[in-house]
Amino acid sequence: MTEPLIRQLTIFGVGLIGGSLALALREAGVVDEIVGCSRREEHLRQALELGVIDRYHLDAAEAVAGADVVFVSVPLGAMRSVFEAMRPGLAADAVITDGGSAKQCVVDDARAAFGTLPPGFVPGHPIAGTEKSGVTAAFPELYRNRRVILTPLAESDPAAVERVRAMWQAAGAEVEEMEVHHHDEVLAATSHLPHMLAFGLVDSLARMRDNDEIFRYAAGGFRDFTRIASSDPVMWRDICIHNREAILDMTARYQADLEEMVRAIERGDGDALLEIFSRAKAARDRFCNE
Amino acid sequence: MTEPLIRQLTIFGVGLIGGSLALALREAGVVDEIVGCSRREEHLRQALELGVIDRYHLDAAEAVAGADVVFVSVPLGAMRSVFEAMRPGLAADAVITDGGSAKQCVVDDARAAFGTLPPGFVPGHPIAGTEKSGVTAAFPELYRNRRVILTPLAESDPAAVERVRAMWQAAGAEVEEMEVHHHDEVLAATSHLPHMLAFGLVDSLARMRDNDEIFRYAAGGFRDFTRIASSDPVMWRDICIHNREAILDMTARYQADLEEMVRAIERGDGDALLEIFSRAKAARDRFCNE
Repeated sequence: MTEPLIRQLTIFGVGLIGGSLALALREAGVVDEIVGCSRREEHLRQALELGVIDRYHLDAAEAVAGADVVFVSVPLGAMRSVFEAMRPGLAADAVITDGGSAKQCVVDDARAAFGTLPPGFVPGHPIAGTEKSGVTAAFPELYRNRRVILTPLAESDPAAVERVRAMWQAAGAEVEEMEVHHHDEVLAATSHLPHMLAFGLVDSLARMRDNDEIFRYAAGGFRDFTRIASSDPVMWRDICIHNREAILDMTARYQADLEEMVRAIERGDGDALLEIFSRAKAARDRFCNE
Repeated sequence: MTEPLIRQLTIFGVGLIGGSLALALREAGVVDEIVGCSRREEHLRQALELGVIDRYHLDAAEAVAGADVVFVSVPLGAMRSVFEAMRPGLAADAVITDGGSAKQCVVDDARAAFGTLPPGFVPGHPIAGTEKSGVTAAFPELYRNRRVILTPLAESDPAAVERVRAMWQAAGAEVEEMEVHHHDEVLAATSHLPHMLAFGLVDSLARMRDNDEIFRYAAGGFRDFTRIASSDPVMWRDICIHNREAILDMTARYQADLEEMVRAIERGDGDALLEIFSRAKAARDRFCNE
């Protein structure tokens, strides 16, 4: 019998992201045992019943005991305390990776929690998800043909990077590497800002008089546009706080562009509007060709 | 044999909206003959080949000759000239309706073109569509279970209103009535502003350095969020110009709310962000329950 890719995988936060990884790796037959850890025992019990994990611990150090790979998929605001809590039980050669939507803050948290960055630490971010959350929303195909970005550090052991890469590939993903800061900028543009805009729009409408009637006349375009506003508010609060700088930069740029559109509408400048809309349509058709 | 609901339907602008209505009414067996009119003969020839229309005229007055119902689905900026051009051929008792996304401007255009508003004129707006355009995107089910808003005027003949209502019901739609000004406000909120935001976001990203790379990492949420940015730029330019007041009101409200979010991120106020995001998620889950 050949050695499996992962002997014991410990997952912190067995929700959509962690649960789907567990299901995918199980389906691929590359993991022997999956251990869950969370502050909410009912979530772990549910994950156990669904066959997503084999067993669980509420104590982080106990949960990582014996783990050769640890995957942390908790909201960004909980990363540091999870790192701190697992430290006493962590094997020296354990590989640690995460699913956080911003990376500089996770690196900072790991440095703060571990003192020096462990060579097994490889920050990562699967560019996948749905507006649903929780383990009941998990499914093994979530990562198939999706991109996973790893942001290895100077301290990262190349063997650990290869292990994390192999894990995501086994789940069906395409794995790429990027520098931490660049990751945070790209994701602010393509994910964090759009979520803010969608949450903001729905909230603007919800606060209007007659909002019942307003939503009643929303068509398919509105549903698609606002789907991401059904995402987990805690996760997104943490992203906004922890990727603050890149999000504020990107938002300022967007606010200026929006103001330009408003001015064009005010002065009835159809040519300027047509130019913006045409350029946007061309870019969207080109890049999101469906 | 009983009289059909419509003997001759003349459609101006046989694209997604006009073409889908033609296909739906044909499928329902409620129309004898469908005549197309457009400035672009190749579009009409295509509609003829696809069996969407029975014949066509490039001259508007010839196209409406013999029509008992006329449907105008051209960009808002072309409404007035279409009304003016059809006038010489229009029967005194013809029913005229439209598919314009804003209604005050269409009413103003009709008044300007016809002198006084014809009793057969019943402004309307089907709340349906996709990001595609053109007659090749038309399909008979587009209006099924979708809302159509009619904004009858003091001058509108109740029999004409009933006729337009019956036409849309035959296409599978739910028909409601609304006051013109109110329609324009509601649609600015649920459709026009979201389109501006989506066009604006894609354009902001497209204008950034490394935009190729940025779009490469866009995930499913971004595709959904920006789908409406693939809509027809000319149609949306016209909507922004012709529903200017309501759109500027709604956009100002949104800009203030966005600025509030930015301030909360700046001061690291997670509670304020969580409140906004939670309220938005609750509203979206409630109103767009899928």
